[in-house]
Amino acid sequence: MTNQRRRPGRRPGSADTRGEILAAARKVFAEKGFDKATVRGIAREAGVDPALVHHYFATKEGMFVAALRLPVTPEEVIPLLLEGPREEIGTRLVRMLLRVTSEPETREPMVALLRSAMTHEQSATMFREFISNALLYQVADRLGVPHLRVEAAFAQMFGVILARYVLKLEPLASASHDELVELLGPTVQRYFCG
Amino acid sequence: MTNQRRRPGRRPGSADTRGEILAAARKVFAEKGFDKATVRGIAREAGVDPALVHHYFATKEGMFVAALRLPVTPEEVIPLLLEGPREEIGTRLVRMLLRVTSEPETREPMVALLRSAMTHEQSATMFREFISNALLYQVADRLGVPHLRVEAAFAQMFGVILARYVLKLEPLASASHDELVELLGPTVQRYFCG
Repeated sequence: MTNQRRRPGRRPGSADTRGEILAAARKVFAEKGFDKATVRGIAREAGVDPALVHHYFATKEGMFVAALRLPVTPEEVIPLLLEGPREEIGTRLVRMLLRVTSEPETREPMVALLRSAMTHEQSATMFREFISNALLYQVADRLGVPHLRVEAAFAQMFGVILARYVLKLEPLASASHDELVELLGPTVQRYFCG
Repeated sequence: MTNQRRRPGRRPGSADTRGEILAAARKVFAEKGFDKATVRGIAREAGVDPALVHHYFATKEGMFVAALRLPVTPEEVIPLLLEGPREEIGTRLVRMLLRVTSEPETREPMVALLRSAMTHEQSATMFREFISNALLYQVADRLGVPHLRVEAAFAQMFGVILARYVLKLEPLASASHDELVELLGPTVQRYFCG
């Protein structure tokens, strides 16, 4: 008797509406890629009004980050890179990435996305579009740095994260943050400002 | 009648003995990793005499490269890096890797190994042991460079190959060899000689 009339279709604003929107977002991002996915399409997939999606997620970037459980949004990362002395951007970027990836809870969703992008064409498209348009090109354009140079910096850090946490190459996997900042900071700095 | 007494067990030296050894090698490398795999164990798996394995493959490294259909052996790569002016080692390494990966026939087996290492623990172990012991530590020790620095160079190029050929980030995926040598060469050079 108590469960009668529960789930009478979609429940706008119910406890797991946010979860349903995120499940729909994961499906739509995987199918369409980041660029072609729309708030409207995700709302349709979730069976809710687009305004409700906007209520939970201000931007498509934010929805992507939440759907894939990524630990940081471009909106957090970009100011961190752009604020502060330009000659320390390499140090700031390396230190931030090491901090975000040092805890398993924040690292695992990122590594899962990278793994998936390595093995599934659709995930690769989704990741490429997100990382390019929401992050790399934004940073490059605001700093006036060619896209290729920012991608070289990305490739360095992407390779380090995979070598450290997936391949577990030693001594790289056990190196301290300070050692890695000293080693990798100047590389990233040169790409951004060289 | 004609087929009687064909395949009376293993046929040492028959047309596909080499193929059987390689199939056994793939199995043993995947199960044991690179370090713990032995010529004797691979011979046992293939049902042939160890001397026959040595007849086809001079070294365990050579067998690994052949089993995984990799385009270059450490025996070819290491001298290429060590010979020639030390101040051009970055340029030489970047140009060689771009050359080896530019053709699909030589690139695909390498990318397949990287993908497999990203997603399977056993492949990661096999790849880590091979790349560390047969390549990175050899180069580092012969040049007197700390292992960590050679791994940073590896991470840069590993990241570039994945970003260029798997993620297909643009403009990185379309950049010319000359552009990439100019951009990445100094990074590798600094790790080796900085």
